Amino acid sequence: MKATIHITLKNGVLDPQGKAIENALGQLGFGGIDEVRQGKLIEINLSESDPEKAEAALTDMCEKLLANTVIENYQIHLDGEA
Amino acid sequence: MKATIHITLKNGVLDPQGKAIENALGQLGFGGIDEVRQGKLIEINLSESDPEKAEAALTDMCEKLLANTVIENYQIHLDGEA
Repeated sequence: MKATIHITLKNGVLDPQGKAIENALGQLGFGGIDEVRQGKLIEINLSESDPEKAEAALTDMCEKLLANTVIENYQIHLDGEA
Repeated sequence: MKATIHITLKNGVLDPQGKAIENALGQLGFGGIDEVRQGKLIEINLSESDPEKAEAALTDMCEKLLANTVIENYQIHLDGEA
């Protein structure tokens, strides 16, 4: 089973990397950009085939390692759900 | 209009960051993990409201700045499409 985890900074947390992208896009002549935020995308192939168990394991992984829950949010997407 | 861009390494491109996550998860006792790949997630708020124009602009941004198309793939998701 394949899972994709989206890790994004919480609202209000400064995102200098996103700001840098925003400025660079402006300098390249792209207009109409209000805000850019950069996060992480983690793709995991699991041997677990039960979606509920997989989601429980992934939540545990996010809490323990993948996301810094003080400043980051995470979303887990299983398989075809994109 | 809000857009999310997924930037992932192409197949065959070494991903040491993903490997590090895979090893760390193993050491934390998580089993049944076949492969971990890490990519980038970029969220952009655009003032453009026409989906076709927005997608064209975003494709242009990916080609020119956001993705290194030699080693990375990108996927553009508009608004609610997640």
